[in-house]
Amino acid sequence: MSSEFGNRLRVSIFGQSHGSAVGVVIDGLPAGEAIDLEELQRFLERRAPGRNALSTPRRETDEPRFLSGLENGLTCGAPLCAVLENRDQHSSDYDALRDVPRPGHADYTAWVKWGGRADMRGGGHFSGRLTAPLCVAGGIAKQILARRGVFVGAHLASVGPEDDAAFPPEPDAALFAAMAAKPFPVLDDAAGERMRAVIADAAREGDSVGGVIECAAVGLPAGIGEPMFGGMESRLAAVLFGIPAVKGVEFGAGFSAARLRGSQNNDPFCLRDGQVRTSSNHAGGILGGITNGMPLTLRAAVKPTPSIAKPQQSVSLSRMEPAELTVTGRHDPCIAHRAVPVVEAAVAAVLLDLLEEG
Amino acid sequence: MSSEFGNRLRVSIFGQSHGSAVGVVIDGLPAGEAIDLEELQRFLERRAPGRNALSTPRRETDEPRFLSGLENGLTCGAPLCAVLENRDQHSSDYDALRDVPRPGHADYTAWVKWGGRADMRGGGHFSGRLTAPLCVAGGIAKQILARRGVFVGAHLASVGPEDDAAFPPEPDAALFAAMAAKPFPVLDDAAGERMRAVIADAAREGDSVGGVIECAAVGLPAGIGEPMFGGMESRLAAVLFGIPAVKGVEFGAGFSAARLRGSQNNDPFCLRDGQVRTSSNHAGGILGGITNGMPLTLRAAVKPTPSIAKPQQSVSLSRMEPAELTVTGRHDPCIAHRAVPVVEAAVAAVLLDLLEEG
Amino acid sequence: MSSEFGNRLRVSIFGQSHGSAVGVVIDGLPAGEAIDLEELQRFLERRAPGRNALSTPRRETDEPRFLSGLENGLTCGAPLCAVLENRDQHSSDYDALRDVPRPGHADYTAWVKWGGRADMRGGGHFSGRLTAPLCVAGGIAKQILARRGVFVGAHLASVGPEDDAAFPPEPDAALFAAMAAKPFPVLDDAAGERMRAVIADAAREGDSVGGVIECAAVGLPAGIGEPMFGGMESRLAAVLFGIPAVKGVEFGAGFSAARLRGSQNNDPFCLRDGQVRTSSNHAGGILGGITNGMPLTLRAAVKPTPSIAKPQQSVSLSRMEPAELTVTGRHDPCIAHRAVPVVEAAVAAVLLDLLEEG
Amino acid sequence: MSSEFGNRLRVSIFGQSHGSAVGVVIDGLPAGEAIDLEELQRFLERRAPGRNALSTPRRETDEPRFLSGLENGLTCGAPLCAVLENRDQHSSDYDALRDVPRPGHADYTAWVKWGGRADMRGGGHFSGRLTAPLCVAGGIAKQILARRGVFVGAHLASVGPEDDAAFPPEPDAALFAAMAAKPFPVLDDAAGERMRAVIADAAREGDSVGGVIECAAVGLPAGIGEPMFGGMESRLAAVLFGIPAVKGVEFGAGFSAARLRGSQNNDPFCLRDGQVRTSSNHAGGILGGITNGMPLTLRAAVKPTPSIAKPQQSVSLSRMEPAELTVTGRHDPCIAHRAVPVVEAAVAAVLLDLLEEG
Repeated sequence: MSSEFGNRLRVSIFGQSHGSAVGVVIDGLPAGEAIDLEELQRFLERRAPGRNALSTPRRETDEPRFLSGLENGLTCGAPLCAVLENRDQHSSDYDALRDVPRPGHADYTAWVKWGGRADMRGGGHFSGRLTAPLCVAGGIAKQILARRGVFVGAHLASVGPEDDAAFPPEPDAALFAAMAAKPFPVLDDAAGERMRAVIADAAREGDSVGGVIECAAVGLPAGIGEPMFGGMESRLAAVLFGIPAVKGVEFGAGFSAARLRGSQNNDPFCLRDGQVRTSSNHAGGILGGITNGMPLTLRAAVKPTPSIAKPQQSVSLSRMEPAELTVTGRHDPCIAHRAVPVVEAAVAAVLLDLLEEG
Repeated sequence: MSSEFGNRLRVSIFGQSHGSAVGVVIDGLPAGEAIDLEELQRFLERRAPGRNALSTPRRETDEPRFLSGLENGLTCGAPLCAVLENRDQHSSDYDALRDVPRPGHADYTAWVKWGGRADMRGGGHFSGRLTAPLCVAGGIAKQILARRGVFVGAHLASVGPEDDAAFPPEPDAALFAAMAAKPFPVLDDAAGERMRAVIADAAREGDSVGGVIECAAVGLPAGIGEPMFGGMESRLAAVLFGIPAVKGVEFGAGFSAARLRGSQNNDPFCLRDGQVRTSSNHAGGILGGITNGMPLTLRAAVKPTPSIAKPQQSVSLSRMEPAELTVTGRHDPCIAHRAVPVVEAAVAAVLLDLLEEG
Repeated sequence: MSSEFGNRLRVSIFGQSHGSAVGVVIDGLPAGEAIDLEELQRFLERRAPGRNALSTPRRETDEPRFLSGLENGLTCGAPLCAVLENRDQHSSDYDALRDVPRPGHADYTAWVKWGGRADMRGGGHFSGRLTAPLCVAGGIAKQILARRGVFVGAHLASVGPEDDAAFPPEPDAALFAAMAAKPFPVLDDAAGERMRAVIADAAREGDSVGGVIECAAVGLPAGIGEPMFGGMESRLAAVLFGIPAVKGVEFGAGFSAARLRGSQNNDPFCLRDGQVRTSSNHAGGILGGITNGMPLTLRAAVKPTPSIAKPQQSVSLSRMEPAELTVTGRHDPCIAHRAVPVVEAAVAAVLLDLLEEG
Repeated sequence: MSSEFGNRLRVSIFGQSHGSAVGVVIDGLPAGEAIDLEELQRFLERRAPGRNALSTPRRETDEPRFLSGLENGLTCGAPLCAVLENRDQHSSDYDALRDVPRPGHADYTAWVKWGGRADMRGGGHFSGRLTAPLCVAGGIAKQILARRGVFVGAHLASVGPEDDAAFPPEPDAALFAAMAAKPFPVLDDAAGERMRAVIADAAREGDSVGGVIECAAVGLPAGIGEPMFGGMESRLAAVLFGIPAVKGVEFGAGFSAARLRGSQNNDPFCLRDGQVRTSSNHAGGILGGITNGMPLTLRAAVKPTPSIAKPQQSVSLSRMEPAELTVTGRHDPCIAHRAVPVVEAAVAAVLLDLLEEG
């Protein structure tokens, strides 16, 4: 059950980075929903590499072929399967890595688990490539959510030591669209320039940097989610931590709430336009695991790309002796900006699942 | 599916704070495991209130009665049900809250979800009281794990602005036992004194504070967990976020990894005693969702107790107008220290589930 | 995950026949549903032993105590836990059975699975006693379903070689109520007399007999269920086969459909009162796993009680040699009539789960 | 969750009869298992149409393309995805059916469920075509099971009124192989001739017939399965009822056990070659939901093909008035013989899942 999530909406992801294709099966989509394939394609391209000077020039083919579930542009009730062929494979780059696991990668743990039979070329099933089919699922979910008045957006909150501004208390669809239109999705373009410089510096030194993504969803009705382990935080975190390289997730004020007093962190209830709202949103729109109608806000920490050009210490698994490793090939010096739509996709898929559960 | 988790080991929690009892059903426990009830009781008492001057004097009864699954002190293969009676109920304290939801609590969201039928006395099913049966499950899991050489421990990493020291790179069972024996579980007792002062200050002002818990597990074999959504982080976070008041979860370096470079964050592989190890542990023992044999480390952020004595702004749901609220009764000015064994319990239950899956 | 079922409505059953109690946790019940405890009690008594001369006089206590989930007679959204104490335990009757497994019972398979640690007194967790908490869940589900216009009823279709009449094509709530009111639930009382004679004969000879239960549900809207493995038949059969002693399940014409031609078995569509109906119901109300609005009909085969007074051949597990076994104590010569409400309960719980899923 | 099953081994099936492809994702396959593609192909051809004069000549392409999970002929730990293209589509045959649902088909229930958006050409996601990817999963499972000494086989137990002989008490791999090699898989070839005549007669009259399949598995260790709803019968039946047209499932003596006395139905324990066995097998190898080491035996009833050439009564959904329907195109007068490998596939997939759970 490793590569699936969801209750009503089941998302099942398959593929290896250097196999013939990656893809997704989505079972439980509502029927009769129009999928705008051009809009989906634009969403997928936000994740694609080679989009700017900061990404690897490797050309992936992020044009999904729909094998089932979509007829005349409408979902038909049957499980939807979308396949993305893998075209640009440089397997030889990875042959040397079979014996000497790359630090920070799943090479060693996959070797322990699957006894050397894992197809770990390019990271195999652990590769960031697998976020492409997740984005297909999330991109479809975003379109359906938008028709229900629910919008999901995200920006790059930090890269290395440089921080973007935070989302305003009540972000809206227009702001999300503006973020989606930027090649480097930040609120403060000056901060964005500093972030790019951090990435460029790391690249020059054969190194990489991490970052944090802030994501929000607006338009969610109050009352979605369940107590305890079925809560919004549990459901969302389980999927967000399934994105490769995510090592931390927080909701609302998150870790900083632990520094506050109750009188600061509690969000007072108030009335606005006849609706119960809160005048601050440290809760990130979630109380007791259940939405309160305020914007859902969360942040996900993405570790620096483990593939770096600098020589690293590792071991030879066959000889059980130390080995120095230099990873060749071209690698993203930062994946956090490419992970922005992936976080949106994960959140959108979970939200649609929750709304479908009712 | 709100109050359950686990695959092989299914943990299902029931009860309301002011109902007649809370309890847990654990299905899938291995048979023939001895449960030391005195050891379990000592574990439960670490969570119990009234343990020191910083906690509410409310006397809960944390002595579980076993209705099934345990015969002559051994698990018997059938689902285990343990019940904790609720004795000390002051329902009148809460009657005024039915119409005016407490900021930071689930009062409002439960009202939206269940249309006013929720039994929200004392927080109802959302109450911290529900962590008692979780501790029964986790305490049992800890005993079984210990026989397999797996030990779980935790300490209070911060309260408000005050930080404890961090766990050493390779904590062990003795250190965990030392933490468990302390009424206020910190590594640095001087820091502990400062934390207690922070709590006492907040209490004096009718306020509350949050904190962070660091948890570790040692002795786990490499190769446990699955890729993507079945990964260790996903499985653990889904349960940790089910603990009331947890708003952030991070593994290894977590959010601070996002500030690092790859060359800093990657843990070099090395050999120690003929075993593959890493010379640092920013990964928190998890690569690609799968254990690498290093200590599993994580941190959970606990928000400040939402029940505070200070007057707060809220609304009357019946009259749809602003209302000031003063929460009466006695409340913990901090729950983070009491949440230390709860985090251990959640982690232990998930680890046993994962080990049973094989 | 052995003793649980359901998606939105999770039913988790615990207990051993001779432990201190059996019970059930039901998570996901809609909130605000009134539970009529007297009506529930009458339902539970249909299952209880000692109801007529054909049942064992063993006095069980089928009066549930509600630990959670029910406040002032209404469900409150939190998981409901109901406990039935076990009072009448004659453990000594079973001591001799530990080494020599009873034919037709789970003694041997539990011994293999749990290495002798199973609490198999009275059948342990495999006992028919565990159908009492299932009936609590099903009895509650029946009350909620009735308020939605869905009624579930059943009768004893056969005992040994004697057959009752079949349900009419469109049974209704009144017929179900009439069946529920009878101590021996058959349509044709003359057939019922013959069935009783079959049971009495078997009892006299220290033997037992099996039977078949026919169950129907009316008032279900069309469109409930899913294709393939989420279909009505799959969902219902998985729970029905969880009832001890059930060895066969069929829907509509079932096995006899395999003897028919398509032109006989296909149910022609027709219009009645402006509604699409079928003029026959070989499909048992299910096409492609989804309800078609006709009565849901199914039959479950119950094997003869394995506990019989006649001497039987078995083996001593400790000495690995043949052993003759005579089961002492009083046992039902037939459990099929007591299983009638249990089948209703299982069906009702699954139907409520499906309706809650929407 | 309609088109998925399994715990450790998750099988997720997608596709519509007349979409571009059908396929399957199998998550959780053990790594390093060799898949003999020629053997798999031979297995798939047992299900394929056009194999003998009794089947429709429609040419399906049952040659799976593996998109993931298989590297150099070995499973690699990542989810396996296999796709079967749909080539031979005569959609025009089905256009007339959109408004007038075919009796015995899911046309009407899919229309109710999905509001007319369902792609029901050729039966859509409800088509027997979807059993092809199930056979891919089952064929792979059979190969892995065989290496563990577990063999699954089946034969056609009846067609219309004609019965084959029953499996012997202890069938073996050689017998299963003999059945698999026959174009018409029966034990008694004279009975097979009578069955064929029954099918030919029905075909001549524009009608169809049903049948029963008997399936057995040998080599299973004792102790597999769980009590109650996790029992072998529950797990197997849930998947078997997911096969289109299956309306009844029974284990061991099944429905006929309900006619027996306990002294007849109980299987006496005995010792053979130092192993605990039973001298009869009315239990079908399952006691209390758990395997007892005897052959697992079950029977599944397949209704007559609903697509028949004879005119049938139906209704026009747009005009809500009666309508006569004549289904054109070529259809199998019997699908029971083609369902024999499908039942084997379903059983094999469930058994591998259970064995992987341990």
